[in-house]
Amino acid sequence: MKEDRQCIFCKIIAREIGSTILYEDNDIIAFNDIAPKAPVHVIIIPKQHIERINDITAETALLVGRLILVAKTLAEKLEIAESGYRLVFNCNQNAGQAVFHIHLHLLGGRLLHWPPG
Amino acid sequence: MKEDRQCIFCKIIAREIGSTILYEDNDIIAFNDIAPKAPVHVIIIPKQHIERINDITAETALLVGRLILVAKTLAEKLEIAESGYRLVFNCNQNAGQAVFHIHLHLLGGRLLHWPPG
Repeated sequence: MKEDRQCIFCKIIAREIGSTILYEDNDIIAFNDIAPKAPVHVIIIPKQHIERINDITAETALLVGRLILVAKTLAEKLEIAESGYRLVFNCNQNAGQAVFHIHLHLLGGRLLHWPPG
Repeated sequence: MKEDRQCIFCKIIAREIGSTILYEDNDIIAFNDIAPKAPVHVIIIPKQHIERINDITAETALLVGRLILVAKTLAEKLEIAESGYRLVFNCNQNAGQAVFHIHLHLLGGRLLHWPPG
């Protein structure tokens, strides 16, 4: 599986950096954001090092869909499924992408305003 | 294919309500948001009427992944792929979900702030 030895998320996957892991399977891992912007703020990532949403393909579309499915399952587990939650992918500078390993933000536990940034 | 005769997005798919359609295939359609919050603000939806992200399953995960793939392709076409863009799903009240047919927001063409709402 492709990884990047300098990538902070690859280091979390490898347990070289600590995090509060909420979910893991062969392909995906989820952990709490270290700078949470809501009472629930989880990061969900593929273990495969894909830098940007710009880099996804038909071959990785199912993996990306499974990130959303894991988010849905975590929303239930964290009891925000009924009150509601927002899912966010950022790509490149205008969106403030800070780590170049694709990651889905799951935010909930408070009212989320519009527009989304 | 499941549809809801009262759903505004199902009516857009059926051409009963006009919209500026930017992409269409057998399973997915994309059109401009009628209340844009950025220079580029596109809505990407499955033709299948799925009410909430809470309702997605392993069987629909690929379809959801393909929504992201269509967003990526539209970002290239609309020339915001390099400058950046944000992708957003809202589920239920705390996120302000306004239409109960799952839809992905693609926003770009300006700096998007953090937190995302």
